[in-house]
Amino acid sequence: MPNIKVQPSGNIYEYEVGKTLLEVLLEEGIFVDNPCNGKGLCGKCKVRILEGELSEPEDTERKLLKQEEMENGVRLSCLVKPETDLEIELMQKERKHQVLTGGYIPSFAFDQDIQKIVVEIQKPTLEDQTSFEDQILRQIPKASLELGCLQMREFVSGQVTVVLHGNQVIQIEEGNTTEKMYGVAVDIGTTTVVCTLIDMLTGKELAHASMINAQKHFGLDVLTRITYELEHPEDGVEKLQKALVNSINEMIEDICCQAEVSKEWIYEIAVGANCTMMHMLLGVPATSLGRSPYAPVFVCGKDIKAKEIGLCAAEGARLYCLPSVSAYIGADIVAGAYVCQLQKESGNVLFIDIGTNGEIVLSSHGRLLCCSCAAGPALEGMNISSGMRAAEGAIEDVTITESGIEWKVIGNEKPIGICGSGILAVVKELLRVGLVRKEGAFIKLNKLEESDYRFHMLQENGKKREFILSEEQKLLITQGDIRQVQLAKGAILSGFLALLKKAGIQMEDLDKVMIAGQFGAHLPADSLVGTGIIPKEVQEKLVYVGNSSKTGAYMALMSAKVKREMEELARQMDYMELGATENYERLFSECLIFPNVK
Amino acid sequence: MPNIKVQPSGNIYEYEVGKTLLEVLLEEGIFVDNPCNGKGLCGKCKVRILEGELSEPEDTERKLLKQEEMENGVRLSCLVKPETDLEIELMQKERKHQVLTGGYIPSFAFDQDIQKIVVEIQKPTLEDQTSFEDQILRQIPKASLELGCLQMREFVSGQVTVVLHGNQVIQIEEGNTTEKMYGVAVDIGTTTVVCTLIDMLTGKELAHASMINAQKHFGLDVLTRITYELEHPEDGVEKLQKALVNSINEMIEDICCQAEVSKEWIYEIAVGANCTMMHMLLGVPATSLGRSPYAPVFVCGKDIKAKEIGLCAAEGARLYCLPSVSAYIGADIVAGAYVCQLQKESGNVLFIDIGTNGEIVLSSHGRLLCCSCAAGPALEGMNISSGMRAAEGAIEDVTITESGIEWKVIGNEKPIGICGSGILAVVKELLRVGLVRKEGAFIKLNKLEESDYRFHMLQENGKKREFILSEEQKLLITQGDIRQVQLAKGAILSGFLALLKKAGIQMEDLDKVMIAGQFGAHLPADSLVGTGIIPKEVQEKLVYVGNSSKTGAYMALMSAKVKREMEELARQMDYMELGATENYERLFSECLIFPNVK
Ligand code: FES
Ligand code: FES
Repeated sequence: MPNIKVQPSGNIYEYEVGKTLLEVLLEEGIFVDNPCNGKGLCGKCKVRILEGELSEPEDTERKLLKQEEMENGVRLSCLVKPETDLEIELMQKERKHQVLTGGYIPSFAFDQDIQKIVVEIQKPTLEDQTSFEDQILRQIPKASLELGCLQMREFVSGQVTVVLHGNQVIQIEEGNTTEKMYGVAVDIGTTTVVCTLIDMLTGKELAHASMINAQKHFGLDVLTRITYELEHPEDGVEKLQKALVNSINEMIEDICCQAEVSKEWIYEIAVGANCTMMHMLLGVPATSLGRSPYAPVFVCGKDIKAKEIGLCAAEGARLYCLPSVSAYIGADIVAGAYVCQLQKESGNVLFIDIGTNGEIVLSSHGRLLCCSCAAGPALEGMNISSGMRAAEGAIEDVTITESGIEWKVIGNEKPIGICGSGILAVVKELLRVGLVRKEGAFIKLNKLEESDYRFHMLQENGKKREFILSEEQKLLITQGDIRQVQLAKGAILSGFLALLKKAGIQMEDLDKVMIAGQFGAHLPADSLVGTGIIPKEVQEKLVYVGNSSKTGAYMALMSAKVKREMEELARQMDYMELGATENYERLFSECLIFPNVK
Repeated sequence: MPNIKVQPSGNIYEYEVGKTLLEVLLEEGIFVDNPCNGKGLCGKCKVRILEGELSEPEDTERKLLKQEEMENGVRLSCLVKPETDLEIELMQKERKHQVLTGGYIPSFAFDQDIQKIVVEIQKPTLEDQTSFEDQILRQIPKASLELGCLQMREFVSGQVTVVLHGNQVIQIEEGNTTEKMYGVAVDIGTTTVVCTLIDMLTGKELAHASMINAQKHFGLDVLTRITYELEHPEDGVEKLQKALVNSINEMIEDICCQAEVSKEWIYEIAVGANCTMMHMLLGVPATSLGRSPYAPVFVCGKDIKAKEIGLCAAEGARLYCLPSVSAYIGADIVAGAYVCQLQKESGNVLFIDIGTNGEIVLSSHGRLLCCSCAAGPALEGMNISSGMRAAEGAIEDVTITESGIEWKVIGNEKPIGICGSGILAVVKELLRVGLVRKEGAFIKLNKLEESDYRFHMLQENGKKREFILSEEQKLLITQGDIRQVQLAKGAILSGFLALLKKAGIQMEDLDKVMIAGQFGAHLPADSLVGTGIIPKEVQEKLVYVGNSSKTGAYMALMSAKVKREMEELARQMDYMELGATENYERLFSECLIFPNVK
């Protein structure tokens, strides 16, 4: 096997041919920033090649690198597949311990709530009958024991390992088990649930699983599920909770199996989720979240026994639920804001999580304002005539040129539909080539010459005009599809502008715009700007941060201080209800207008 | 109905004819000391009659009152049954709020852990979507909510009542429910379990139930039950726990029904019990308590959710288990020591709880020493040839005179056996009249003249001599019975003396000797001293304190400060293992000798 020498550490690793350089490095636990998850979109995964041969850069890579960088041997690690011995230099300072893959993560020190301490239990004698519990408490002053640690436990002497959560003894194990300490970071989205197994001693990610949220049987969106609760007062809450809990338990089995770890060694589970999912996970009725004025039952972070809601891990394992701000600014957004360290920003930073709901947080000179806007599911590929999720066979990028329509299909298969990033790209292109006007309507066919390369791209279906994305696969983009994107655009942009207005700052005052969320990571800057979701003025300031909810859960798992700071952050975030702001309707309709091209 | 005017308050109460004056007063919640539970034994229930007629005092009463007291109108309230209008004066200072019947109780201020606070939940609006939880937390800063309070609870607005346990919100109720706040004080003895329903707003005892400990199916004594655990590793601990929990649940039903209170309003249950019972109640294996060196798994007080062990009360109700000191100095003794305020004694006070195990605590100038001695069940009427529990038909007192043998039978029935206080009285009488010698043997028949009134009281059965308690009922006291009492006496007295020796104080330095426990209350001073269980020198210093374990549980229920002080007290009590002290065997055999009479 060829090997790779990594500077500045000088460490040498063997690697298998066939993987990208980014994959090779991440698998060795070497941190390389990769907000777009190695898709060649973000341009952040730069490394400098010191020695060794690589194929010449292609267009995508050239576009993302400056001339000067290329001359200095800089490459995008996600776009190169090394085959021979190599020496490289990392361009970011390596952050200690931070090996979670798949997203931006700020520097932080490990300071787990979970700790293991070995104590020696003396065999009692007639002269010293000190109880089992007191022998532990004498060796760990300030600790207190949960009853569960003593139940079904006889007096054993010799070495025992005490598992602490803060000052609370949550479990006692015979012998020295300090080498086993695992946790799970969970991100519950309305659509997908993701679980990551973490070695809590090193902070390393050991295994990863994701699945469709099993609540889909009760409705695809949050509101339908809340309606299910309302209509099934006897057991709706319980059924929705069970669906989530069972999914997580299944994934815990899976990741434990992958990493060959017993789930008895999992002592903490940290969860990021939107506010409704959090209510449902904990078995708290979410009905008030489903109707105006959208008041949650709770928003604070929760720290309970994992088994209280039926999660299967160590007997005494804890569950930490990240704090939310309001019904529509959930713990996923607090996690994101924290991961981006918005509370520490001295300038003006805007954070956007794009999904069915767009959540926006503005950090302006230390003040935090947030809002949520109903973008609809178009940007996730739903509610679109040929829409589909981002899976194999989905068109994820489109280019219209004089010679025709080009697509990029996930898995390089024949296209079977179009996903969120694809539909956004189409709209951007339609605007660019002038097939769609800024009010959102297709141009009339009679405005085009038959000789125009665009003429055969449109067709009329009764009174409705449609864009023929693929004749062969009968993939069309309808006027309705454009309207869906337009509504999403209006919702997000109006939230964006309303926050700026509320904070009294101008567009040019913005220092950074951070794009977060599972879906956001797949929406390239030119599409976002080209469709006007994000104003052109901030294009240069876009930063992608990946799945920051999962990262937030990971950080909470690895640090008690992070938990405290997140709670603090959640309290500082002022929520602004868009529907209740002055002139919002007018702002929204102005924001529906697509940007002028040329 | 006639009425009774009580000075110094001047309050007037109607009463039903047929009850003793003590019963009338206690039912009205007026505290009158009654350590012997109104049996005419302790002489503590004195009141002064100011106006009205009562029957002349009989012998029992005359014996317990001084001439001077009788001249001043003092009577024992448990021995008089008033029939007409009466005016009386209480002789003890009335202690505010302290209305628990059946035992001595020191003055203490109410300071319950449980509190109810009414808060107003605002209907949310688009401008103010504050969560249900946060609305509560804003009105009760420092509080934190248990998840259980939010589960199955929709967002309700209007008045809600928050039930706090310290700073923890354990339950939330719609409307204003501050008038309902109940608790249960439980005393779990090896033989009987006692539950008392307490109105936690007033501290009043509302109802009372007791039953035989359902664990009797697993063995009559603690050791047999521990053996059951050992022999049934799969479910022994669980079965023993269930037996206790079910008994308590049954009694909770019963007392709630008596007082017409819903068990949903019971927010705290406080339990006093010996160390083994406490382990078994909490489902903690007690096996280490059953074999030398008798080390408990835990001794600290425990504060958990009542439902964690299956107790039925309010959803969020708490269970407080009083702290123990060691395997054989349980929470019942800590409660007793606390009720007697041993930790505050400036002089030398000895506390004895007499039962199958005799537990002794010596408070000497602020230092607390304790020990436990295996007295055997004789003083509870068990292991005695004609023995029985103190129930109807049991001989509870015996006098031998020249004209024959007199007995007092519980319920004034024909005697069917003899209970603990009876057997002790017999032995005292046999010693007094010289039928038993101080080494514990019956005198030889040939030492008596046929004309001696005692001659026909003894008979020979083969080589064994027996005392004929009742010819008609064939009740005999055998040499073996005497030996049982002698063993109990040797055990208790040796513990008593060993503690004095360890503390370096003399008998005459003792200021008080307190007799506690369910059984102790029924053992009159002359029997205790006449048999030598208690040295004659301290006869004048005897004080009866009743069931102090139940009283301790009551006090813990009514005051967080009491709980803290009890934990502190338990830590201060130094346990001395008699078997491990020097020359104990010799001391024990010396203590077997009965006292010299005349
Ligand atoms: S990770 Fe390589 S370009 Fe984003
Ligand atoms: S209560 Fe009356 S003598 Fe004891």
